[in-house]
Order: sequence, then structure tokens, then C-alpha cells
Amino acid sequence: MIATPQTLHFDDPLPLSSGAQLPAFDLVYETYGQLNAARSNAVLVCHALNASHHVAGRHADANGAPIPKSEGWWDNLIGPGKPIDTERWFVIGVNNLGSCFGSTGPTHLNPATGQPWGADFPVVTVEDWVNAQARLLDALGIEQLAAVIGGSLGGMQALSWTLQYPRRVRHAVVVASAPNLTAENIAFNEVARRAIVTDPDFHSGHYLRHGTKPRRGLRIARMIGHITYLSDDVMNEKFGRRLQALADLTHAAGASKPSDSTDAPDPATLDALERLAYRYSTQEVEFQIESYLRHQGNKFSDYFDANTYLLITRALDYFDPARDYDGHLSAALARTEARFLLISFSTDWRFAPARSREIVKALLDNKRDVSYAEIDAPHGHDAFLLDDPRYHAAVRSYFEQQIAPTLGLAGAGLGQHSGRATP
Amino acid sequence: MIATPQTLHFDDPLPLSSGAQLPAFDLVYETYGQLNAARSNAVLVCHALNASHHVAGRHADANGAPIPKSEGWWDNLIGPGKPIDTERWFVIGVNNLGSCFGSTGPTHLNPATGQPWGADFPVVTVEDWVNAQARLLDALGIEQLAAVIGGSLGGMQALSWTLQYPRRVRHAVVVASAPNLTAENIAFNEVARRAIVTDPDFHSGHYLRHGTKPRRGLRIARMIGHITYLSDDVMNEKFGRRLQALADLTHAAGASKPSDSTDAPDPATLDALERLAYRYSTQEVEFQIESYLRHQGNKFSDYFDANTYLLITRALDYFDPARDYDGHLSAALARTEARFLLISFSTDWRFAPARSREIVKALLDNKRDVSYAEIDAPHGHDAFLLDDPRYHAAVRSYFEQQIAPTLGLAGAGLGQHSGRATP
Repeated sequence: MIATPQTLHFDDPLPLSSGAQLPAFDLVYETYGQLNAARSNAVLVCHALNASHHVAGRHADANGAPIPKSEGWWDNLIGPGKPIDTERWFVIGVNNLGSCFGSTGPTHLNPATGQPWGADFPVVTVEDWVNAQARLLDALGIEQLAAVIGGSLGGMQALSWTLQYPRRVRHAVVVASAPNLTAENIAFNEVARRAIVTDPDFHSGHYLRHGTKPRRGLRIARMIGHITYLSDDVMNEKFGRRLQALADLTHAAGASKPSDSTDAPDPATLDALERLAYRYSTQEVEFQIESYLRHQGNKFSDYFDANTYLLITRALDYFDPARDYDGHLSAALARTEARFLLISFSTDWRFAPARSREIVKALLDNKRDVSYAEIDAPHGHDAFLLDDPRYHAAVRSYFEQQIAPTLGLAGAGLGQHSGRATP
Repeated sequence: MIATPQTLHFDDPLPLSSGAQLPAFDLVYETYGQLNAARSNAVLVCHALNASHHVAGRHADANGAPIPKSEGWWDNLIGPGKPIDTERWFVIGVNNLGSCFGSTGPTHLNPATGQPWGADFPVVTVEDWVNAQARLLDALGIEQLAAVIGGSLGGMQALSWTLQYPRRVRHAVVVASAPNLTAENIAFNEVARRAIVTDPDFHSGHYLRHGTKPRRGLRIARMIGHITYLSDDVMNEKFGRRLQALADLTHAAGASKPSDSTDAPDPATLDALERLAYRYSTQEVEFQIESYLRHQGNKFSDYFDANTYLLITRALDYFDPARDYDGHLSAALARTEARFLLISFSTDWRFAPARSREIVKALLDNKRDVSYAEIDAPHGHDAFLLDDPRYHAAVRSYFEQQIAPTLGLAGAGLGQHSGRATP
């Protein structure tokens, strides 16, 4: 499946939660599948921290050939024959305001100054994003969504849709999310922000004018993030206390073989490698987990914008629909009209299952129609991006059994896509 | 109780785990109570990351008067009439090599160059610290300890004593500790180290020569540390999602009253404050948890040395007594001869109870005499420093019922200290 990003320009100013407004803005989006004649099969996908509108499929090169490894971030879930089947649903991925992947954000020019917005880009909230997404739906001629879906921060947007536009959402699928951040969640965000803001290359957020970027801070921010995305168990399994020297020597042993050989080093060699001595260094990489985190930090600092990181973590911090109801989530969710699927993952300590259960309880207090799946998965918060069979089966079943019938779409036609499609 | 730091100089070189050696060194220590004639009542206290030899009592000013708020870091546990009663035990606190509180470390002069050691200070391990501590005991004429005790990294030293000097330790009390770090533990240490090392003021670890220090990195390191010391629950209880503006206004309301008034703002005022609007800022403090973490980071960057932070976190990473036994902790602990008290805290996610239980199991595999208390406490890893009554009762009982009798010291005389002493 080939995905083609598109851009829509909006000239009407967007009022923001902060009281400021964005005079005009662009939204970049992708769509997959076909909007049906009744315009009733649209599914909006909301993205989390460092993702974008590129949800599924691959991008094409100048000759129209798919670019290797250019799959969208939820490509395992969305596509022809996949749990969210693009032969049935018209799926929309949209990049949020304040991002660095195309929609108007701090790397763009501030029309008032002709300079990049930088740190002057207004603070945006989950509610602001949802309002902008609603403008996109207006432009696409979609009055009501069959479903809105998102994981983590994307799940907050899905939940917010049901509060801001109760009649425009038939179903909301909220994955690995929470009704607000805990103090610990905010604390991790704050440390990451301080690492960025106190990097001398941050220049009060106007680093672009100085031809630089706060890479050191971005690296630290991403390393902290990665720790919180994984479970303790999966980290022990993937890295444990294994030394980087072991990985280096194993790699070297492999590289010295002919390139078409897939032989691993023999067991005796590996055994000797396991008994490698420590390097005794405070600054060099010693353990494989260190190498992994540094690599993730370096990659991230290459492609991500620091002001975007500040904005998106703040949107996370600020989201709290119960705030206007003295903290009573049930009261806050009384105006929802959608049906819900909530999914959480047992080892997710960033947005623990208990947080999803708070939402489930508040919806049940309002007698809403709620399905809830707590998936026993080892991968921590990252699980929502992975191809866990029980998780994907829950999403597939919900779309086929719960959403399709409410739209008068029979489930029978789905048999033809029971296998994996190869786009 | 007045505590007086003392210094001992050692001229014999100390061979280190890394293969390097320290040509000569100083150890700073304090003692509390009296060594008995049999020299059998000595208790060694090992410190964790940012602590020191100043374990109990208060320091005195030039006139001999106690300095307010100068209590040692374990003063709630150790002193006259306290769980480790200094009227019975001769307690020794010692500052570890590589520290920045007096014992030889990276801020001292390298005799080979006449310059501060800085990043050239050799990497030291838990085993090296224990060897240095043994030299101190030799100098004090103590052949065998009644007990060695420590929490967290200090617990690792206590455990290591029983392996390196099995006959010199009658009892080991290992609190909130682990047989080694998990990948996640190492990951948090590594992020903190990267924040320090990539601070431009680090100057490859020779910042003293440049008349500066990597304060930004130290702040980030300390903020990360603080998150891992507290439980999610206690953070929510202490800070929750409360705004700093609320704390500021509450403080201002209190300050506007006469200074002898202890009136809090009236409930209506507080209620109004609770509904304060967000500031909508990515860089200013919004939530109280942010203010707390920044404050902790600032304090730490004032008094702590960056190279010491690197050295001590690396000592944590490297500790792994099972490493020479193919990961079999039971085999590693076979040479212990001491009796043990292990204590863990239910909400400690840094060194979770399961890690203490690994040690308990390995000791039981060797038919060692082990007591184990898993304390249901809300405070996370920090609990080992706090005055939890069940925790302190367990320590008191162990010292009175288990240690004293093995030394021929009757428990009866303890009745006179059943109340809290006021030193």
C-alpha cells in the first residue's frame, strides 16, 4: 500500500486553550482506503509523542516504487486485511499542530516576524489538536467518524473527541492511555524538558536562528523516554547485564565469515566472550543497554525538533478532563455519547492498566457501552505499537463485530481478508 | 550527640579491582559510642550514593555547641537509645574512596601531577571500598565486626564484606539492596552520567582546572535519581497534579499574616486557588512536582562532585558477586559465614523486594541463618532512610535479640533506653 501525504491550509484563526490563537495553519495528513458514499466509514488515527500522519503503508520514490522501511508507525495494525482493514474503512492519519513533521509548528515561519516560531509557538493542548482535526474532517466532508483511535497521547485525543464533539464520534478506541498524567509521569517529562532547555545550544528556544539545535538535551530526553516505554522485564530479557564488548566481538566474529554465511560464533567462543572482563570506565559504553540508549538518543536528536518535544510533553501534562469537575472523572465523561473500547497492557508502568480502568469505571458510571481488554504482554508501554496477537485480535474483533454492524455494514464480506495482505 | 570527623592516612598502596592501584589515601570517618574491652561491639555503617561518614549525631561549632540541622543521614536509626544504640555499640561511619566528602577522591590532588585527579581518578568498586574499610578496621584494632550494615549501595558493601572477609563479620544487615543492578537500573545511571559528561562545563572531567563544574548535568542526574527514589503513590500523595501557583499563593497568604500567626488561608480561598488556571508555559514551572525536582537538582549541583557521581554510579553498575559463578548467586554466597538480616520495602521499585528475596534464597540454599523483613511502606526506595516504626523495630529487635546474645551481651540492660534519647 502506497501512502501519499497531503496538505490542507486553513485560513480561519484557531482559538487555543491558552487564550492565544493561531492565525492560520497547515495540516498534513494521509488517507488509506475509500470513503463510502454514505461518508460513514471514516476512522481517524491520532498520534502520540514522536509519530506523525504517516500511519500505514509505505511512501513511494520518484518512480512510484515503495521505499524500503518506510512503513507507517501503525502499519502492523492498519492496511488491507489488517485488524483495521483499509478495504473497508477510510482511515485518516493527521499530523498535529506544533509537530515537526509537516503541520504548522515551531520550525515554520511566524507570519508576524518572518522568523521561525521557535519558542514563540503557542502552547497547544489535546483539545486544540482535536479542534484542528475537526476542521480537517469538515474539509473532507466527514460529519461523523465511525471511530477515532489512538494509543498513549493519541488515546487522550480519542477520549477528548468524545467530550468535545460527542455527536461526531460513534466509537472511540483508547489504547494504553490515561485520564491524566501522574506526578511521576510529569516528573519524567520535566527532567526531559530541563535537559533540553538547559542545553547551551537551546538559545531560549531560538536555536534555528543560531544555526544549531540542542542535541545533547534531545539525546537525554529520548533516553529517559525509552526507559519508560519498556518494562523492566523486557529490558532484562533484551539486554540484561550483557557487556557491549560481547556484542562487538560477536559481531566481529560474524563479520569475518563470508558474507553469505549465517554461522554464529561457536559455543566455546561465546562462552569465553561471556567471561569478558569489565573495561572499568565511567564514560565509555560498558553494558549493551547503554549502547542501545545512546543509539536511540542520537537517532532522535537527528530528526526531532526540541520545541516540538517541549510542546508535546506539555500537552500530555495539561490533559485532565476531570479538572473542571473537581477531579470527578465520571462527571467529566457524562457528556460522551460514543461507545468505547479500552485496551491496556499488563507491564505498562507509564500508563498502567489501573489508569485505563479509571476511564472504564467512569464510563460505566454513566452507563456507557464499554469493552475493555487488559492484555498480558511483556513489552511495557511500547506494546501498543507492537504486533501482539491478542491485542490485534481485540481490535479486529471490535471493528468487525461492534463498529461495522452499527453502520449497517455486514461482517460477512470480511472473510476474504482473513489472511495477511502483502501491500 | 556530637560527632567529630577524623582522618586516617594510609601509605600502603591499595590494589584496585581494575588492576590500577591507589598509591596512598585518606579515609575520613566518625565513631559513636565506645569500643568495649573485648573489641567485639563494633558496627560498621556503609553509605550509599550521596551520603558520607557523617551517619549520626550533630556536628559542633567552634564553641562546642551542636549545629542545627547537622544531623547525620541515619541519625533516626543510630544514637543513644535508638534501634542501633550507641550506648551499647561502637558505631563507625566511613566515607568511601572516590567521594567528595573528605576521603581521597577526584577533587584531591593526584600526587603524580600535582593537579586534581578529576576524571583520572581510578574506577573504584564495592570490593575496593570494602578493602579500604578493612584497612580502617585494622588501624582501629578491630579484628571482627559485630555487624556491618548498609542500605541500597551500602547494602551491597555489607553483602560484599561477608564475601571478602567472611570471618571478620558476625552479622550483616542488608537494607533495600540487590545482588546486582537490572538493565533498567543501569539505564537510569547511564542517562544521568550522559547528562553530566555531555555538559560543556564537564571539560572531559577536568572542570576544576577550568574553574567550573557541570551543574546542568548534575541537576538532571539528581532529578532522575529523585524520581527513582520515590514511589508513584507517594509522589501522587505529596505532589499529585497540584499547581505551583497554588503553593505560591498559599505561601503568600500565610506570609501576609503577622509572623506569629499560624493561620492557614481560609477554605474558600483555598477552594478558589484550586481552580487556578494553567499558565500555559513549556519552560516555567507549572506543577509542584517540577518545583520540587528543580530545587533538589539545584541543591545537589551546589555540593556534589560530578566525577564522584560517575564513580559511584559505576560502582553500582559493576557490583555483581555472581558474575564469577556464571550468574549463580547461591554458588557466589557459599563462602559467607555471617548471619543475615535482609530488609526490603514493598513500594521500592528501584531495588524491589524480589531482589532482596534473591539474596535470601541464595543464603538459604547455603543453609545460612537469615532473617527477612518485607516492610509494607509507601515511600519507595527512600523508605530505608525514613523513620518507619516497623522497619526500625525490626532493626532494634535484630540488634538486641540476635546480635547482642552472640557476643555474650545480655539484652536486659536495654530497658533503660526504651524511650527516645535527646542528644
